[in-house]
Amino acid sequence: MKTAQIDLLLEMKKRTSEKRATQNETILQQHSRDESYHTPVSPDVVVYPSSTEEISSIMSFANEHGIPVVPFGAGSSLEGHCIPVKGGISLNFQEMNQVLEVRPEDFLVKVQPGVTRTQLNLALKKYGLFFPVDPGADATIGGMAATNASGTTSVKYGIMRDQVRNLKVVLADGKVINTGGLAAKSSAGYHLTGMFVGSEGTLGVFSEITLKVYGIPEAILAARCTFDSVQSAVEAAASVLGSGTGIARMELVDERSIVQVNKNSDTSYTEAPTLFLEFQGNPASVPYEATLTKELLESFGGLEWVEEHDSLARAKLWEARHHLAYAFKHGYPGKSMMFTDVCLPLSELSGAIVYAREVMDTVGVPGAVLGHVGDGNFHAILMYDQNDLQEREKADKVNAEIVNYALQKGGTCTGEHGIGIGKAKYLAEEHADTLPIMSGIKKQLDPNNILNPGKIIL
Amino acid sequence: MKTAQIDLLLEMKKRTSEKRATQNETILQQHSRDESYHTPVSPDVVVYPSSTEEISSIMSFANEHGIPVVPFGAGSSLEGHCIPVKGGISLNFQEMNQVLEVRPEDFLVKVQPGVTRTQLNLALKKYGLFFPVDPGADATIGGMAATNASGTTSVKYGIMRDQVRNLKVVLADGKVINTGGLAAKSSAGYHLTGMFVGSEGTLGVFSEITLKVYGIPEAILAARCTFDSVQSAVEAAASVLGSGTGIARMELVDERSIVQVNKNSDTSYTEAPTLFLEFQGNPASVPYEATLTKELLESFGGLEWVEEHDSLARAKLWEARHHLAYAFKHGYPGKSMMFTDVCLPLSELSGAIVYAREVMDTVGVPGAVLGHVGDGNFHAILMYDQNDLQEREKADKVNAEIVNYALQKGGTCTGEHGIGIGKAKYLAEEHADTLPIMSGIKKQLDPNNILNPGKIIL
Repeated sequence: MKTAQIDLLLEMKKRTSEKRATQNETILQQHSRDESYHTPVSPDVVVYPSSTEEISSIMSFANEHGIPVVPFGAGSSLEGHCIPVKGGISLNFQEMNQVLEVRPEDFLVKVQPGVTRTQLNLALKKYGLFFPVDPGADATIGGMAATNASGTTSVKYGIMRDQVRNLKVVLADGKVINTGGLAAKSSAGYHLTGMFVGSEGTLGVFSEITLKVYGIPEAILAARCTFDSVQSAVEAAASVLGSGTGIARMELVDERSIVQVNKNSDTSYTEAPTLFLEFQGNPASVPYEATLTKELLESFGGLEWVEEHDSLARAKLWEARHHLAYAFKHGYPGKSMMFTDVCLPLSELSGAIVYAREVMDTVGVPGAVLGHVGDGNFHAILMYDQNDLQEREKADKVNAEIVNYALQKGGTCTGEHGIGIGKAKYLAEEHADTLPIMSGIKKQLDPNNILNPGKIIL
Repeated sequence: MKTAQIDLLLEMKKRTSEKRATQNETILQQHSRDESYHTPVSPDVVVYPSSTEEISSIMSFANEHGIPVVPFGAGSSLEGHCIPVKGGISLNFQEMNQVLEVRPEDFLVKVQPGVTRTQLNLALKKYGLFFPVDPGADATIGGMAATNASGTTSVKYGIMRDQVRNLKVVLADGKVINTGGLAAKSSAGYHLTGMFVGSEGTLGVFSEITLKVYGIPEAILAARCTFDSVQSAVEAAASVLGSGTGIARMELVDERSIVQVNKNSDTSYTEAPTLFLEFQGNPASVPYEATLTKELLESFGGLEWVEEHDSLARAKLWEARHHLAYAFKHGYPGKSMMFTDVCLPLSELSGAIVYAREVMDTVGVPGAVLGHVGDGNFHAILMYDQNDLQEREKADKVNAEIVNYALQKGGTCTGEHGIGIGKAKYLAEEHADTLPIMSGIKKQLDPNNILNPGKIIL
């Protein structure tokens, strides 16, 4: 980095405006971390671009001078993605938060990267449309595309990569490209859109994102079903998938999580391993699917089945699920949280979750297990004291054991959180044979290694 | 190419077996063409590998000597993909046609590239599973993955790229990689699986393919609905999509196509613009969706609605649709067929189809229009005499006009057939800004340009 010789603040102000670049210490610190346990590192400057042209100008300058550029959305990433580990420029997208175009007939929306998912859904509602992908946090669409996020609805609607139709990307040298188009499908050349989605700011900076959206379903029904063990809950969930019954959401929440939910929300859910479910469709299909699923779950040991018919109770149920991570933070004041994130073939999920809970108990790390069981994706929430080396090592050990189990069974070290800093060593294991290809692509697109250096490709 | 100095036949026999390499003139000619109008070019040798190891050995040799390698599946491509325009080795996968593993609990199947889609569905049936992607021809899975094929069911199930979970790929230098894994989703690094799907043999040779499969739906209902114009049929189709009613297939077949269908099959369908539809789901949802769709289509000018309740009548309907290209070939003996393939945002589809038919009439090229209107994808079938320069130029002109219209409206020059030879010039137009990135990836993975040279990247 050659920032020492140049006045970075002045240069950034020249490329944006007087007000949209700062070296205020508090703001630098706000951009030094995400929601993960990874060690904070401050950027040298925080910039708030307002257009593709400004980003392009910033990139040209940064590329010429070898200055790292790290995009920053809501800061809700979980593997240190937006931590500027080599300093440089933190690009905050809060000034680029417009829904640019809704094309209801085409089921498409074009947004700037700083739009959050709840903001987007508010804008879509008047068209009878919605955007399904829902990571727990109110992340920005830019961040969600960068990490290939997913959430509770992926079992029906797919993941972020399935929704992105086009990306306007500013490359390392400031050149602006469009990776896709407006058509629902294309066989025109190499699929670059899919490659940029999930590239975590290491291949380019997104400045516009065109997404697929969906009609709000005519009928929705949520339900909860308790079980006497996590294993029977997971096996019951697998049977629902096997039956081909349509399901829009199917979340495992273990009894330890329910305890936190009840403490943090005004709920009094039975404190047992539970599946949270949702059916979406038409007035004929939804009750049919719910009845079928209830019968199936009961035959696999389902105990208490509770349906939530009104939209408020349904919203409360999913809010409780989405706020689980925060519930744990409140439940363990002063502790840090490590959020594991493996995904396995469905037939291996039950074994993996049972194993994860055993390892947590054996090693002695408090927390819980929850997950998007319809996708084979689960998280262990591990609570530990970041300042206690022994506790930190224990949490690392549990995470490693969970990842190793997943990799041995054909799974992945990250279902939806991404590689960032925390999973780089596991990526090298999981994709040892393709890592040289990924490195080659990185070198081609970012020869000076200024794009979020220290992430994915070390 | 340095084939002159070496005995290619002998070298290939050494790497496979005495029987699995040939320079028989008839066989060379069989590998000189696909189902398109593009000029045939014979390979220097045809090889039938039986394992990943043999492919690897062939690739190492070819790479060392700069000999082109062109994979060949069923030969049903439509843009000259498997024509060895620079000679070299045609790799025929007929000896690699095994369904290697079915994992019913994981909804996964692993196949060799030479397995055809009907063969795969036969193997899956006993597990209550099926693979939905259905290009008209009985293509191989390898070819379908290489061109990112789709078909009539993509409106519900997605395209080939959505189904491929992992590819075993032999790279240009003979190295073998796995691009993905068994998990339903992953955020682990750059998405190479999606990049190799649709790469048309230009980045590597697939030797194993792991696919997502689906439970055979409990209930299926097919229907036809006629209209007084193509335009009202397309607008009615758009209204069905807008309503959010589940639909598994929605195909436009214009009146000119129906004439050929009736001539070629034992059908007597009303010779009017028609939507072929299918509903898949459970016994509650299917009748509900069919009734809703019928009412919607009628309000948009739908005339005659005919349901096909038994599986034989349903099979006949879709067979008629799938055999349309062949029906035209029989209907115009001695003529060649050019098969256009654009895809547009839904709101632009009606205008594009009306325009295509006008251009065909104005320029004077007989044929018809049909398409996967649920995806915004349509084909014009253009019949012409390949030996008549003027007719050839007319067909080219119609194709160009259709592509230009699509590109102007944010669409793509190929929805599902791929680039091959015929669309390379349009790719350069559609993705002018990303073509340098595609070229860089090609150079990185195939520095000696031996992998299907002359396709996609010229």
